[in-house]
Amino acid sequence: MKQNTKFNAAILIIGNEILSGRTQDTNTSLIAQWLNSIGVKVNEVRVIPDIEKTIIENINHLRSSYDYVFTTGGIGPTHDDITAQSISKAFNLEYEKHKEAFKILEAYYKAGEFNEGRQKMVWMPRNANLILNPTSGAPGFNVENVFCLPGVPSILKSMLGGLKDKIVGGDPIISHTISLKTVESEIADSLTSIQNKNKDVEIGSYPFFQAGKLGVSIVIRSEDKLKINKCSHEILEFVNKKKIEIVNR
Amino acid sequence: MKQNTKFNAAILIIGNEILSGRTQDTNTSLIAQWLNSIGVKVNEVRVIPDIEKTIIENINHLRSSYDYVFTTGGIGPTHDDITAQSISKAFNLEYEKHKEAFKILEAYYKAGEFNEGRQKMVWMPRNANLILNPTSGAPGFNVENVFCLPGVPSILKSMLGGLKDKIVGGDPIISHTISLKTVESEIADSLTSIQNKNKDVEIGSYPFFQAGKLGVSIVIRSEDKLKINKCSHEILEFVNKKKIEIVNR
Repeated sequence: MKQNTKFNAAILIIGNEILSGRTQDTNTSLIAQWLNSIGVKVNEVRVIPDIEKTIIENINHLRSSYDYVFTTGGIGPTHDDITAQSISKAFNLEYEKHKEAFKILEAYYKAGEFNEGRQKMVWMPRNANLILNPTSGAPGFNVENVFCLPGVPSILKSMLGGLKDKIVGGDPIISHTISLKTVESEIADSLTSIQNKNKDVEIGSYPFFQAGKLGVSIVIRSEDKLKINKCSHEILEFVNKKKIEIVNR
Repeated sequence: MKQNTKFNAAILIIGNEILSGRTQDTNTSLIAQWLNSIGVKVNEVRVIPDIEKTIIENINHLRSSYDYVFTTGGIGPTHDDITAQSISKAFNLEYEKHKEAFKILEAYYKAGEFNEGRQKMVWMPRNANLILNPTSGAPGFNVENVFCLPGVPSILKSMLGGLKDKIVGGDPIISHTISLKTVESEIADSLTSIQNKNKDVEIGSYPFFQAGKLGVSIVIRSEDKLKINKCSHEILEFVNKKKIEIVNR
């Protein structure tokens, strides 16, 4: 029933530390690969600062433009963690103590350790659905199609599994890579004509310089394995004809 | 004269390979750190696919919203490299062979090697200003406040130096980090009150889990060293009072 339906998503990275260049974002790649595996394609990523107005505007734009929105960051206990209150405002919902989240953290922490700072993490939009956190207790949450995850990659990663039932996707998006010892200009024309003949397959061309090797990786992406095979075959045809060396990568 | 004037920028990462999660973006961090060093703050990053309409819309929105826009990716010779033609359309300029770029690449390649594929890389918006490429010949370009750079990080990095004269910035943005053996909830209240007293300094709190250590890095950012020192002093005051251990990181 779900087959051949396309689902898309946007990722909203909330955090000054990414914009300052201090921290390199790795969550995009993590979330995108996981979404591909359940048949959801990421169409846009935005990185924005910890500013309430900016978060609200972006959330409201993205949630009406895409099937799903995933936010990362800003759900901890400090002053710069303003995701939950901003989401509440974006949806026009009360920002309040979430009873279920409170119970989870009350049980998670030892007696006396569930202090005021930690209790901030149970403040959420009214009736938010929890996303369980097997690593460090404090849950994420979703409101409608907006899913709020933490910024720390190891914690985020551990929470994706529990999300699977909440996301309706299509066929997994498969990708196949052919790496060649060549330069892009040598294969540009051939690739263009193959892309033109196979419009519903995404063909990307990415030069690489690595370990003294100079080459190009051609990446073919589609939900349809047969279409990938057809493209792959056409690419290998010109590769053989031009006597270009295939490299392992 | 430039002092105390704030300059901002957006980065537009153009490329399906980032959205698919196959490639992790490292250019944001590279460009942002370089911009901070010349007094320009990155306020937004967007990652978008190789779709002309999407590129045009984003360029036109970002170039009117920020002082500078930096794009990465899509300026090579293959079918998925459509940045230059998209920028031409965004600015309503002819997309044509750039004479100076042609001369540069004609001199760069050996006789006979400057083939049609490579010649695609000299097609640019009319009267674009070139950004020289000391690594692989093919220049980037800028039109007004939009600067187009390649996607390969090593090449992009080599081109930033040549950009410096084209960017007017303010005082370098300095950051100071204090890493503590603690958890965020222990310091949340103290940090909040310091942030409230120092509104024009950006204080970020980032938990880390690394090499068996669990802690929090507090990052203070400003163009004003004295303000950073003042905040830093106030933070160390509560750190000492609470007997929290400072860690090297």
